[in-house]
Amino acid sequence: VSAAGEVLVACCQLAPRIGEVEPNRAAAAAAIEDAAARGAQVVVLPELCVSGYVFEDADEARSLAEPVDGPTVTGWRTLARRLGVVVVGGVCELDDDGLLRNSAVLVDADGTVGAVYRKAHLWDREDVAFAAGTEPPPVVDTRFGRLGVMVCYDLEFPEWVRLAALGGAELLCAPANWPAAARPDGERAPEVVRTQADASVNRIFVAVCDRTGVERGVDWVGGSVVVDPDGFPLAGPAAGGEVVTVVARCDLARARDKRVSARNDVLADRRPELYGGVAARGG
Amino acid sequence: VSAAGEVLVACCQLAPRIGEVEPNRAAAAAAIEDAAARGAQVVVLPELCVSGYVFEDADEARSLAEPVDGPTVTGWRTLARRLGVVVVGGVCELDDDGLLRNSAVLVDADGTVGAVYRKAHLWDREDVAFAAGTEPPPVVDTRFGRLGVMVCYDLEFPEWVRLAALGGAELLCAPANWPAAARPDGERAPEVVRTQADASVNRIFVAVCDRTGVERGVDWVGGSVVVDPDGFPLAGPAAGGEVVTVVARCDLARARDKRVSARNDVLADRRPELYGGVAARGG
Repeated sequence: VSAAGEVLVACCQLAPRIGEVEPNRAAAAAAIEDAAARGAQVVVLPELCVSGYVFEDADEARSLAEPVDGPTVTGWRTLARRLGVVVVGGVCELDDDGLLRNSAVLVDADGTVGAVYRKAHLWDREDVAFAAGTEPPPVVDTRFGRLGVMVCYDLEFPEWVRLAALGGAELLCAPANWPAAARPDGERAPEVVRTQADASVNRIFVAVCDRTGVERGVDWVGGSVVVDPDGFPLAGPAAGGEVVTVVARCDLARARDKRVSARNDVLADRRPELYGGVAARGG
Repeated sequence: VSAAGEVLVACCQLAPRIGEVEPNRAAAAAAIEDAAARGAQVVVLPELCVSGYVFEDADEARSLAEPVDGPTVTGWRTLARRLGVVVVGGVCELDDDGLLRNSAVLVDADGTVGAVYRKAHLWDREDVAFAAGTEPPPVVDTRFGRLGVMVCYDLEFPEWVRLAALGGAELLCAPANWPAAARPDGERAPEVVRTQADASVNRIFVAVCDRTGVERGVDWVGGSVVVDPDGFPLAGPAAGGEVVTVVARCDLARARDKRVSARNDVLADRRPELYGGVAARGG
């Protein structure tokens, strides 16, 4: 990371095909290579970018799962080390207990696995195949800054993003598969708007890598975006339907300054002693 | 409230002048009358809409403060009863202990005071004059639905909005004075974007009434807005610089349905057992 803390962040919006593991893996690898050639230092890939997303049932998901030491992450480790980039991507993980997890793996630029995060907030039929994670979003010191990791629907729980920010995340990397929905003309997808808010209430950078390509009747927002601590997009939101890499230069030093006025700081101004109801069970 | 739960909500974006209490009070009363004449059932006014905002010092704020049984709220009670409307407005409150509070008062349509909420998250120099509140945002059953109340900068703390939603708020009413800042062409003010996210992550309606009119060098967003549970503006954001009332019809029944897919519910999907860090002191 440069003295100024500037990092080039890329989100590679891909179009995986369900079950076509080898071509999907090759497309992800090519996207990492391409992003690195453009100078990217942090490369974010979509959720479940090698298996595909719309599984028929748990058996199909299991047939496409692999452990963290399987070929997908091993390939990312080789690429990360060779290219000197951090990779954050979504994996259909078979964990050590034999459970399936909708995971995001962070590989540091030296090829080590920095974090394996298991999605805690599952969307729609994901719970047919996946066990929900029970660990908070990891925050990891990488060669290119302090990175937080979560997956897609997790972003819609401001409590979860807050935990990453309180943990010191400067850049939150989130593989996603955002299902498309109708919206009024001229309006951004609500997923993008929520990402903007996630960034600005915490004064962090957020990079969401979405997917594209209709899969078993499901279409996607295709709104990959890198948002700055003011909540403004630096790159993207991408156009739906496009296989495209969005790239933004992020001065991560900005995310270490939480001031929003001469006397305000978005984290110090919190009143955690009054927030007990947010963490109360059955609340 | 109609069988369908439809409520007409108005935000009266005013231009109070610091210290000109009588004209400001008259302008607020005229705006309530006008909104009611247009059919509004819930009328939201700006923060500190009678005193003005940019106080020189605590003494000036104190000279403009009044208790809840003072002329401003008494006037709103008379109007609310006569017109059959709920009024939520910002008051420079002198409390029973002699402390100044940046408060929002909710008056129900029968003229009773339903809630006195004291802003818990103070902006910039507000703490020179005001003591911060220590009570969560109230949620009150009114003639026109279950309403939550908070003030301006409170909206930027998703924990606070969540508490109101967990308390059953269908429509969150927030008097505000949003200070203006530069933003890229084509971008909404981040305050508006955060309001959209507040609404959609909780599936509630949010009505923010901002002010306008440069005051001692401070200009304002002037982005009064009513947002629906999908996060889309139903009315506004208003144009900065305009004294204007934005009006939207809100079907509050929508805010009682938290489902976002066949198997997802934005409140039931929370993992409060994992959110302890959000409420931890010094966290």
